[in-house]
Amino acid sequence: MHMAGELYVVGFGPGCPSARTPEAVEAIKAADVVIGYKTYIELISDLLEGKEVVSAGMREEVYRARKALELAGEGRRVAVVSDGDPQVFGMAPLVLEMASKLDAPVSIKVVPGVTAALAAGALLGAPLGSDFAVINLSPLLTPRGVILERVRQAAAAGFVLALYNPIDKQLLRDVLAVLRQIRGGGTPVGVVKDAYRQGQRVAVTTLNNVDVESVDMRTTLIVGNDETYVWRRFLITPRGYHRKYAYP
Amino acid sequence: MHMAGELYVVGFGPGCPSARTPEAVEAIKAADVVIGYKTYIELISDLLEGKEVVSAGMREEVYRARKALELAGEGRRVAVVSDGDPQVFGMAPLVLEMASKLDAPVSIKVVPGVTAALAAGALLGAPLGSDFAVINLSPLLTPRGVILERVRQAAAAGFVLALYNPIDKQLLRDVLAVLRQIRGGGTPVGVVKDAYRQGQRVAVTTLNNVDVESVDMRTTLIVGNDETYVWRRFLITPRGYHRKYAYP
Repeated sequence: MHMAGELYVVGFGPGCPSARTPEAVEAIKAADVVIGYKTYIELISDLLEGKEVVSAGMREEVYRARKALELAGEGRRVAVVSDGDPQVFGMAPLVLEMASKLDAPVSIKVVPGVTAALAAGALLGAPLGSDFAVINLSPLLTPRGVILERVRQAAAAGFVLALYNPIDKQLLRDVLAVLRQIRGGGTPVGVVKDAYRQGQRVAVTTLNNVDVESVDMRTTLIVGNDETYVWRRFLITPRGYHRKYAYP
Repeated sequence: MHMAGELYVVGFGPGCPSARTPEAVEAIKAADVVIGYKTYIELISDLLEGKEVVSAGMREEVYRARKALELAGEGRRVAVVSDGDPQVFGMAPLVLEMASKLDAPVSIKVVPGVTAALAAGALLGAPLGSDFAVINLSPLLTPRGVILERVRQAAAAGFVLALYNPIDKQLLRDVLAVLRQIRGGGTPVGVVKDAYRQGQRVAVTTLNNVDVESVDMRTTLIVGNDETYVWRRFLITPRGYHRKYAYP
């Protein structure tokens, strides 16, 4: 099949330039057209000189994906950008879904980035030291019951949880209640807002004390497992060396 | 407390320089001493000129963590390096565990990177489009029964699975058998070896057809959920837009 154009779905990481990979920067710089949610376009404004930019609001993801495929189909080189990693609740699945339905004659490449769980996790130290589950708390595309049940099962199975997109305060309250039942209210929680961006805030608290009112779409929560503990400002989930070796 | 030295736990991503963040590169370049597993030291040899290097083999993680804290305690600036993200089954939890036990008077910072699930996921397209669980299949620090049970529960709860460190072929066979029972043998699986490194290999197969013999420590497996499908060479897990919007 002749591939008319090239489409890159690019994650530029949590926000600040120091957390962008060279591959992501190159893919954006080499593009004729850059497409993204307005806030994301602002975060990469230093890379956009001389480019056609298509910015759109939230909930216009389908429009952006279709536009990207159209422009690439016309032979343009297109970068669809998002923060974090575009695979993780981002544009990569949607672009590929739509491309597959249209059997779009476009070459597609996904460029990975540092996703929010990792950015927040690093700021918290090492909460992700054991098996972990990444769960989208937005009820826009997934029924609330499914989200709650998945949280319940992951917690019961012993996973650390990285919770994205807590836009719905009642759902977040319900999620925290489920987690308290399974793990106990004293379980450590990290709450990270605007990781690697202006105004970054990192808080270490417990399931009992999460300040739901201060949580928004730009917040990631990391909930420890039964072994997670707090030292200084860090959340630490042991990998299991203490079961194997005597140390220090 | 007076902090004698600085210790950075740095993830340089999957391997090739184009996937390293500037923050990781700077942390390594600014270090007096760089400590890491031999293979990782080789992957960043371009950054090591003029530095003291402490390389050690696998299963010497405890030694490396202690050495790093000692040297930082003497006032040196130390970088502990690993591929991927050091939080994810890497050195960050161990360094922090040991630091907490010693109450080490050292300033510690974790620098995130692109972890294997994201590197492998990007090469496969968008398998991580829905909630996913990241599971370490190494039985070195976790009992086999715990690993199998966690795989079973995550699969039953509908998570996509990213499976790291499949060093034990019998355990991998058992894991695949459990997954076939729950998801069916036709479920798509991505097998990625040496992502973003020399000799990179990306295969799309099914639970029935994973070639266990070719899988090793440098391989990451991604197992789809009930909605994951294959198009061209891509693995696509829908985010759920198809339930909400008519498209294309």
